[in-house]
Amino acid sequence: MPITYSQAGVDIDRGDALVERIKKLARPTRIPEVVADVGGFAGLCALPSGLVDPILVSGTDGVGTKLKVAFAANVHDTVGQDLVAMCVNDVITVGARPLFFLDYFATGTLELDVGEAVVRGIAEGCKLAGCALLGGETAELPGMYAAGEYDLAGFAVGVVERAKMLDGTKARAGDVVLGVASSGLHSNGYSLARKVLFERMGLGIHDEVPGLGRTAAEALLVPTRIYARAVRELLAAVPAAVRGLSHITGGGLPGNLPRVLPEGLGARLDLSVYERPAIFRVIAEQGPVEEAEMRRTFNLGVGLVVVVAPEAEAAALDALRGAGEQAFRLGEVVEVGADVPFEDRVRFDR
Amino acid sequence: MPITYSQAGVDIDRGDALVERIKKLARPTRIPEVVADVGGFAGLCALPSGLVDPILVSGTDGVGTKLKVAFAANVHDTVGQDLVAMCVNDVITVGARPLFFLDYFATGTLELDVGEAVVRGIAEGCKLAGCALLGGETAELPGMYAAGEYDLAGFAVGVVERAKMLDGTKARAGDVVLGVASSGLHSNGYSLARKVLFERMGLGIHDEVPGLGRTAAEALLVPTRIYARAVRELLAAVPAAVRGLSHITGGGLPGNLPRVLPEGLGARLDLSVYERPAIFRVIAEQGPVEEAEMRRTFNLGVGLVVVVAPEAEAAALDALRGAGEQAFRLGEVVEVGADVPFEDRVRFDR
Repeated sequence: MPITYSQAGVDIDRGDALVERIKKLARPTRIPEVVADVGGFAGLCALPSGLVDPILVSGTDGVGTKLKVAFAANVHDTVGQDLVAMCVNDVITVGARPLFFLDYFATGTLELDVGEAVVRGIAEGCKLAGCALLGGETAELPGMYAAGEYDLAGFAVGVVERAKMLDGTKARAGDVVLGVASSGLHSNGYSLARKVLFERMGLGIHDEVPGLGRTAAEALLVPTRIYARAVRELLAAVPAAVRGLSHITGGGLPGNLPRVLPEGLGARLDLSVYERPAIFRVIAEQGPVEEAEMRRTFNLGVGLVVVVAPEAEAAALDALRGAGEQAFRLGEVVEVGADVPFEDRVRFDR
Repeated sequence: MPITYSQAGVDIDRGDALVERIKKLARPTRIPEVVADVGGFAGLCALPSGLVDPILVSGTDGVGTKLKVAFAANVHDTVGQDLVAMCVNDVITVGARPLFFLDYFATGTLELDVGEAVVRGIAEGCKLAGCALLGGETAELPGMYAAGEYDLAGFAVGVVERAKMLDGTKARAGDVVLGVASSGLHSNGYSLARKVLFERMGLGIHDEVPGLGRTAAEALLVPTRIYARAVRELLAAVPAAVRGLSHITGGGLPGNLPRVLPEGLGARLDLSVYERPAIFRVIAEQGPVEEAEMRRTFNLGVGLVVVVAPEAEAAALDALRGAGEQAFRLGEVVEVGADVPFEDRVRFDR
């Protein structure tokens, strides 16, 4: 008997059916710059008008083993927002406006409803970020993923006027370091968090986490906040005063804040000024995980750090809060000497 | 005992070591537009000068189960070129010049040498495409990939002047359809190809394929050709005469050529004008796989289709051949009527 591509495990029709559903989800994310439906091979997007020397800003990321929690809980409509957040929150750190996003969704055997739920989350994330879901790839890879599992990769492109680019050179000693609250773990440290909750504590995915009033699934699947709108409003309110923006991901505050500080500068932070989300306390106590390891693994409740000129502190906090974020003064930029290792440039008073 | 992130299966230092190797590989791909090493979170690239109304063109893709062949053969330095090719060959179909590329590399436990080999292939692909390897993500996802396996996603961005965009509306009846030779399977149809070679024929990965004079690994891992340079030279030679460009991927000629033809138009092709690569004959005979299924699954030796005005046929062929490609006249654009289903718009004389 002659064999066909479909018998080899790839169903092109099912892929086409998902594409139709994705089109419906992507349509509301369109921004005026999108060149609609021209060509079939690539996504097309013009630049916002009025830019003198536009710099394209791109970021790519995945969701990591947070996906494993989504699989276990059979909840697939939140990780898409995480995916967009991880990419877009990188792009905005140079002061860029996100323009468009593309996703890569790979699975062993395509389940239409799962694929649609994932892309629904991606489209939601794009709306929150103000960028268009411009394209994507759905890959059916028989035998490469376990049943019910998938991987996700995201790509975001934004644009910034070259003269307004936050290039990591602007911060000075005495600048104020503001923290913008995270919604929880965001998308980092899940291998450790899962080990503590599911192995050390022996919780099931739908068990309530003692002291949290939420199940493990609920606590671990809170979507990553997207700071695009907050940063836009911040830059509109105090454009010249913003000296640096750091997206707090793997590596935590010590691993990410120095990336936007010039050589020889560090920061002194006081983590007692805000309430650390309870999930981090649970992980630290039940692991146990030492505070230094917590700090270099998790965001600990701070998803974005804003470095501003001291005179703009109040206006910056107002702008961030006006955009719906919780924001607080974490500390200040200090001289640390050029010979201090990267990971020691952030010091903690508490 | 307190536990650490590393004990949970994620080794940040190993990831950092790979990043250092990647930086060395990426450096030679830089183009003048890249804004070097500014910011740490995102890749930055200016636009080429002189564009009046630049349109950004983006494409994302993976390599599919061609990866499975790379795993079995333990050859990891060719799939990177496939990844770049799959994305860049989409981007150039609208007449765009590729600017930059980002990759997502996900694996269970990071093996430095494997990761480096993969990225070496990606960097090679970027050089062939004339675009910069601007960034990427290396994800270590314990438990999500089998030992020695990984997945890859790529993302390319190019730019085209809006007035010069190939938007799928330009072709007319009587236009000439040119084929540009593929190097073999490229990156499509591997689930079927593997089924035939490894299951039906019972070949081992390093066994010689009867009649090919090459092993299965060699025949299946030929890298996908990258047509960026050929298209650049084509557009320089006969800019106004190019009416459409189609990247022949999954779906073959019937699934891809109509994507760049206006409604009501199709094509008449004669596949006997060029020598079909022997690997396709082996798959068809040994599957067996019927010719119609071959045509809608594989590129059958044609990786790119160029639609040109009839008077430009010779000059277009010269330009493509001058860029190092094999190119031939496949047929012509014909009226098919508006009610003809998509997949029947391409007809085959032979």
